[in-house]
Amino acid sequence: EYHVDWDASAAEKGGYPYFMLKEIAEQPRSVADTLLGRIDDTGRLALDEVRLSEEDLREVDKVIVIACGSSYHAGLIAKYAIEHWTRLPVEVEVASEFRYRDPIIDRSTLVVAISQSGESMDTLMAVRHAREQKARVIAICNTNGSTIPRESDAVLYTHAGPEVGVAATKTFLTQLVACYLLGLFLAQVRGTKFADEVQAIVRELAAMPDAVDDVLDTVEPVRELARSLADAKAVLFLGRHVGYPVALEGALKLKELAYMHAEAFAAGELKHGPIALIEDGLPVVVVVPSPRGRSVIHQKIVSNIQEVRARGARTIVIAEEGDEAVTPYADTVIRTPRTATLLAPLVATVPLQVFACELALARGLDVDQPRNLAKSVTVE
Amino acid sequence: EYHVDWDASAAEKGGYPYFMLKEIAEQPRSVADTLLGRIDDTGRLALDEVRLSEEDLREVDKVIVIACGSSYHAGLIAKYAIEHWTRLPVEVEVASEFRYRDPIIDRSTLVVAISQSGESMDTLMAVRHAREQKARVIAICNTNGSTIPRESDAVLYTHAGPEVGVAATKTFLTQLVACYLLGLFLAQVRGTKFADEVQAIVRELAAMPDAVDDVLDTVEPVRELARSLADAKAVLFLGRHVGYPVALEGALKLKELAYMHAEAFAAGELKHGPIALIEDGLPVVVVVPSPRGRSVIHQKIVSNIQEVRARGARTIVIAEEGDEAVTPYADTVIRTPRTATLLAPLVATVPLQVFACELALARGLDVDQPRNLAKSVTVE
Repeated sequence: EYHVDWDASAAEKGGYPYFMLKEIAEQPRSVADTLLGRIDDTGRLALDEVRLSEEDLREVDKVIVIACGSSYHAGLIAKYAIEHWTRLPVEVEVASEFRYRDPIIDRSTLVVAISQSGESMDTLMAVRHAREQKARVIAICNTNGSTIPRESDAVLYTHAGPEVGVAATKTFLTQLVACYLLGLFLAQVRGTKFADEVQAIVRELAAMPDAVDDVLDTVEPVRELARSLADAKAVLFLGRHVGYPVALEGALKLKELAYMHAEAFAAGELKHGPIALIEDGLPVVVVVPSPRGRSVIHQKIVSNIQEVRARGARTIVIAEEGDEAVTPYADTVIRTPRTATLLAPLVATVPLQVFACELALARGLDVDQPRNLAKSVTVE
Repeated sequence: EYHVDWDASAAEKGGYPYFMLKEIAEQPRSVADTLLGRIDDTGRLALDEVRLSEEDLREVDKVIVIACGSSYHAGLIAKYAIEHWTRLPVEVEVASEFRYRDPIIDRSTLVVAISQSGESMDTLMAVRHAREQKARVIAICNTNGSTIPRESDAVLYTHAGPEVGVAATKTFLTQLVACYLLGLFLAQVRGTKFADEVQAIVRELAAMPDAVDDVLDTVEPVRELARSLADAKAVLFLGRHVGYPVALEGALKLKELAYMHAEAFAAGELKHGPIALIEDGLPVVVVVPSPRGRSVIHQKIVSNIQEVRARGARTIVIAEEGDEAVTPYADTVIRTPRTATLLAPLVATVPLQVFACELALARGLDVDQPRNLAKSVTVE
């Protein structure tokens, strides 16, 4: 009789008990690898496969991002960045709804299809529908030679390496990097940013692997917090601006891994209904945008933290270093390094991954293989 | 000492113990009143106040709907109808995010601001921002002479009458009617629909008050169902196409009134994460689009019902009369009358209002005054 030695499996996991833990730890390198060699001295982005001319890209008058699950959240963040840098309007749509909705697209529409596997059936079907309508399609994908990149006009591969854990972690962060790069490239081709301006943002991106590393180095209190909440019935997440998709991603991780009722809201919607849910001891995670970005948004979310706390919520606040305005209303503060406003999701997402993973482990669950889920959804 | 006679209050409530019950029952008339006298024999829509020329409306190249809470859900449904009838691209955005996001708008953008009170501060601020950017603004509003209509270029009032219950019911249905009318008007002015085609849809709209009445007449089993679920920990809602915003609205009602963890998903997203939440006995409400609309969407949602049921969910299915494909997988079927595909939300929403209201009553809660909520959110 033959037994598989558990050491073999542990080695594969780099010494971690779960692939997910290994993949969370690999994120600084994944982000760095996805940036590597992408931008030359003139600020020009190197796409992996381009069957589109720069003239085609100058003719684009609308961007539509299609994706599912975590990739959809990356798309929501891409909207803020691409609109800000290029002034092109960006719509983001769940792939399964896009195709059957009779969407308005033509040859001036740039469709960005985001899929880790490159085989997500809903996204593939949406890509085919978009190409039938003559739209240009760029794929953002982690799997070389997969179907979606093969059927697209251009490809930007994320260099996260293989991800085994079912819940996306390092592939999500590298999708964000790819979205930022695409936004910068469009900005330069279309003349809304000069090469030196692109370079300045690229330098800020280049600092992100170290920033992610700093988050991982200081994340132990998040683990303790997660263990202390193992018996919570539900967790709410709030965010504004680019922090809203981060909140959505944090809630999705907790659903996937811990099977908890975890819902995210745009903080401004709180008073329009969800605040009724707040009760004594309910954990509420708030992703706070930098006060150095738009101070009025920051003030508003600080008020939101006050409001939910006044109604008994246990407030868990993710805020950048030096943001002391949140301190009086936070039961727990999780600090992230200072970054450019639009790049903050690269650091703010990480503690939420750790939180969901640790909470699920404290509940005795297998974080690599959550119930009912497949890594790649290849049926519609 | 003076005591207020409870009879006075009961009379005000038309004999119902709560305003919300009265307002749900008033919906056939509210829908009829909002349609009344709106469309003349040439298919021309009568707006209440118009400071916009038809030429202005022909120059529109994009529609942005801004709203909060239930009004936002009405906007999501408007997107399907306006895009389908006019081929104008429609974006729908939460008002609190819109203004601070640096949105791309100009004088060719038509902004549709939906607010029951006409005083929602986030929506008002978004309207002001849009007008500064030279966009045209149409308000859909239930309160004559309120601030948002006063500051807009045109107004379409909903004729729901005063709504006292904090959770929107009849104002939501009349917002849908207003959105449909606006879509038809744009379609005719821009030449994407002939007057006789507009009239045909108006005739379908004219049949909706009776259809809503039919739902109310047959809704008793929904009340029983709600009472039987009074102790449930959570309820999930699924929908596709126009059924997705209906699912969102059903979940919001349950949050607002019963303080339950109730989350809605686009059914196609289920496999990308939320399916991990499904466990034995979890109630899942599914809003099924008509098989007579796009049969492929219908097939897919029937598969979704099968999938969640196979994992132990208790399936509560809202489907039109004669849709027998859902029967084998439904623990409970709630029937709605047949309507045109795009108009189905006018009937499908009603059982979800009744469900949330009855479930909250079974929990001993005050459905007119849910905790933490105000009828009109006049602060940002």
